[in-house]
Parts: sequence; structure tokens; C-alpha cells
Amino acid sequence: MPREILTVLTRPSRDVGAGQPDGPAFRFADPADPMLSALDLAATRGDGIFETISVAGGSPQALDHHLRRFARSAAMLDLPVPDEQAWRDAVHATAQAIDPVPEAFVKTVLTRGIEGTGIPTGWCYGAPSPDFTRERTAGISVVLLDRGVRHDVERTAPWLLAGAKTLSYAVNRAAVREAVRRGADDVVFVSSDGIVLEGPTSTLVYRRGDALLTPGVGLGILDGTTQASLFRWATQQGLTTGFELTTPDILRAADAAWLVSSVRYAAPIRAIDGVPMAVDAPFTIAANDWLLALRD
Amino acid sequence: MPREILTVLTRPSRDVGAGQPDGPAFRFADPADPMLSALDLAATRGDGIFETISVAGGSPQALDHHLRRFARSAAMLDLPVPDEQAWRDAVHATAQAIDPVPEAFVKTVLTRGIEGTGIPTGWCYGAPSPDFTRERTAGISVVLLDRGVRHDVERTAPWLLAGAKTLSYAVNRAAVREAVRRGADDVVFVSSDGIVLEGPTSTLVYRRGDALLTPGVGLGILDGTTQASLFRWATQQGLTTGFELTTPDILRAADAAWLVSSVRYAAPIRAIDGVPMAVDAPFTIAANDWLLALRD
Repeated sequence: MPREILTVLTRPSRDVGAGQPDGPAFRFADPADPMLSALDLAATRGDGIFETISVAGGSPQALDHHLRRFARSAAMLDLPVPDEQAWRDAVHATAQAIDPVPEAFVKTVLTRGIEGTGIPTGWCYGAPSPDFTRERTAGISVVLLDRGVRHDVERTAPWLLAGAKTLSYAVNRAAVREAVRRGADDVVFVSSDGIVLEGPTSTLVYRRGDALLTPGVGLGILDGTTQASLFRWATQQGLTTGFELTTPDILRAADAAWLVSSVRYAAPIRAIDGVPMAVDAPFTIAANDWLLALRD
Repeated sequence: MPREILTVLTRPSRDVGAGQPDGPAFRFADPADPMLSALDLAATRGDGIFETISVAGGSPQALDHHLRRFARSAAMLDLPVPDEQAWRDAVHATAQAIDPVPEAFVKTVLTRGIEGTGIPTGWCYGAPSPDFTRERTAGISVVLLDRGVRHDVERTAPWLLAGAKTLSYAVNRAAVREAVRRGADDVVFVSSDGIVLEGPTSTLVYRRGDALLTPGVGLGILDGTTQASLFRWATQQGLTTGFELTTPDILRAADAAWLVSSVRYAAPIRAIDGVPMAVDAPFTIAANDWLLALRD
């Protein structure tokens, strides 16, 4: 079986092409073949949304949460409403078609389609996950970088799309290159008014005593799917969980901190701006074992 | 001859594939055919840059300026250096292959390519321009929208890529949708600290007495190619030209204002946030006639 799977949605939204007869929700395509028009607004304007879903033992994880967030991002961008059942079917089919490996992922992408047509483009891409053993065990060093916007920008300026998972990720990638230039692995963004936000592709979680905390929603950041799963586990472990408006000082004073995300799961932060931070190895191992074993 | 032209760069940068024998710099492709991999970072991350170049009577305008800005955007994104001669040849070939119409455009796109390959993707797309007669004569109504960042963000946080012309344009498109929701045509962005910046796809220019002014560079905004051309003409007309740190009050008090860009040229602003503004019709007509007649 192939290592990479590409699935093209036949009708990514029921808002469009309603008169068409029902057919298969998706078709498999060869990932090596060109699939997209050079005029697709994904390619020319980063005008679309995505999700990256962990696949453990062939099973997509937290799929409901991902599809909910996908629909929310679509609404924030005034995109056609994703056809939930079609996407669910396509994600499952993609996941099942990947080589049977312990860890894989499926990425869902919905774009505004070819300019002028009004017909969205949708696909799933699945592949085995990279090996994140080092990040999960030795941990990652991060730098705090200014995201330039205030922490209330989602409310005051919704056209900035803060909190939507869009394809316009050039800044997130530039921030990671800046981290590497500074000798670090990853980034924690801070708002222009000094509130800790999230990583470019992850949610920040930290532990203080018996409390597991995260900056929470409404700050122009993503509603973390892995963070939500982790909090369920933490509650089972007898920890309290909660949201907190986090400053860099609060973060630096935490007992331990992680950037959590699909695919990489919980990566312990071992340094912030070059200042070492304690890695809680037993907690991290237990959390990642549980995250990897999670089945919807 | 076809109305749309797609040209694929064989080697968009000499930084990559240096060992390869020289061949044609580009090839023509059918715009109706899929051209891009679903894994191209343009489509998955908006990770690339572009320019849109006016073509008047078959001739690309301000091409040197566009290619200079293209190279600057590439540097800001740590992309391979665009091969200037290859792009110049491809733009000319694309422009010449479009139907002979008075007004057309060529868009150049350079992406980071398929993830993991390190090989950039480049293409030109050319087509006749839309009809902007209404915008150029009746003018456009604009709303002032917060861009969320301070006016000095280009210097303090270069990873935000302010001032680079990237493919991550979802916010620019969302801002225009917000303008339409408010009953307006276009947007003038204002920094979080109250400095007027630019339009989502245009440069702001305004006239006060005998002076033609623009907010200028270094504010996280683009170095306007059409604005630069217009300033040359204004100087010939005996006007002074200059940069000014512009507040909304300064803009509202101007004698006339325009959003200027390739393809649409000078669109007079006839209202700001619903408050009418005088349109200087003779000046606008003369400016657009000159811009359309411009040959490199």
C-alpha cells in the first residue's frame, strides 16, 4: 500500500452544487500528480482553512472536535459550510488507506476554489507521522515572539481572522525560522499587550502545583483539540484544569510547560529564551502514552 | 489566441538545481489543467510571494520595480533568490501571448514548493484586465479598518512579514468582505496606534494643495509601484511629492485621495466611513491616462 494518500472531496459543501445528483463523497488521487489549478485561491491568496488530525492505529482522533473547529474556521472566512458527513467519510477513508503504522495524520483542506467560480476545493492528505521521539522526551526550546496584535483582537477586529485556522500561515512559518535563527526549536507568541497566546502550530499548557492551565479561548488563538483531550486526562488524574490570562512571568514561574498539538502531542518546554525550564518526564510520558492510545 | 496564459518557470531561482543544464526559462501550460501539487506550500501554508504587473498595449509596466519588490519579498521570507532574467523573460512572453487588448495583467508567483523538496515553484498567469471604468470615474467608498499591528512592526517584529507581498492574503480578503458588509467598496488599513497604512491591494495617495503625499515605506506596508509612477508624473505636473506619517484626520482633511495599484490604477476615494470626499475628476482622468500610456 502507498505511504501517502490523497483524497479529493467531490462536493466539500452542500451549499454549492445542490442540484447535482449524489455520488461518492470523495475519490482517491495520486499525490504525485498535480491536483490544483494555479488559479485556486488556496495557492494565490492562502484563502482557505485546514485541520491536521492525528491517526493512531488507523483511527482518527478527536475528529468531532476537529470538524467543529473546521466549520468554525469556515464561518469566520465566510466559506461555504463544510459537509460534515462527507469530510468525516473522507477522513476515515484516508486514514484507513495509509500504511498500518502506529502514528499517522490526515490533513483536511477546504479552499475558496478557483477564483470566480464560487466552487470550493476540498481534499484530505494522509501520511505516516514524522518521528517526534526527541521532541517528546528531550523537549523543545522556545522563544517568546511578539504576534503584533492585542489579545482582544478577535473581538475588536474579526477581519484579522485571529482564531481561525487558515491557509495563510506564512507568518507562522517565518516565526519558526526566527526561532531557529535564535538557536531554538519553536515559538510561543505573545500579544502586543503582553499576554501569552499559543505556538504557531500548537497550544500552550502549563502546570502549577495541581493545576493544568492554558490561556484559553477568545484571545485570537485556536481552541486546542489536543489540549482539550489532555485536560480530560488530567481531570482523571485528579488535577484541576482551567483557563488563565497568562503573562510571560506566569509562564516562566510554572512547574512545567508543554506545547501540545495533533501529531507531535505534548512536547515539554525545556527552555524559554535560553533560560532552562524543568521537564516533568513522568507526567509527559504518561500524557503522551494516553494521547496516543486515545480512540474516539 | 487564448485569453488566459499560464507560464511555468523551469527554474525560478538559480539557488536551486545549479547543476542542471540550461534550458528554456519557462514553458506554456494550459490554465485549465491542474498544475500544482496539493502539497505545494503555496496551497497548504500560503508560503510564497507574488506581484501583479499591469500590461498596457502588450507591454509590462514598471517591471523593474516589480521585480525588485519580488526579490525583496523573497528575502523577507527566506525564499530562494528569484532568477531575475528568467522572470523577466517569462513576464514578457506571458504578456505577449495574451490577446491584444488595451489593458491586461501578468501575475508572478513564487512558492516554497512541495514541502520537503526545497525546490521552489514559479509561474506567471496573464489575462485581460477587468473593466475598472466605474471605479476610476465614479470612485470608491472606503472604510478605515484596524490592521491590529503598530506602524513600527516591520522593524520590531520582522517575522510578521509586514511589508512583504506574500500569498497569505486571507486577511486582506476578509477585510474587503467586511467593507462590503458595511456598504463600501474597499479598505484603508490603520495601525493599532492610529497611523494610516495602505489598502489591502493598493497604496494610499492624497493631495493637499500642491503636494501629493503617501504614508511611505517602513510602516509595514508595500513600496507602491503605481504610487512611484504616479509621483514621477506629479513632479512633471509641478506638484511636490512626499511621504508623511498620516493620521485619519490628515487623510480626511485632504483635498482628494486615491487608492492606487496595478491594473486598477488610480481609484478616487469618494467616501470614507460614509462621509463623502471630493473627487478630483480632471486630475484623476489625467493621471489614469498617463498611467495607462506608461511604457518602461
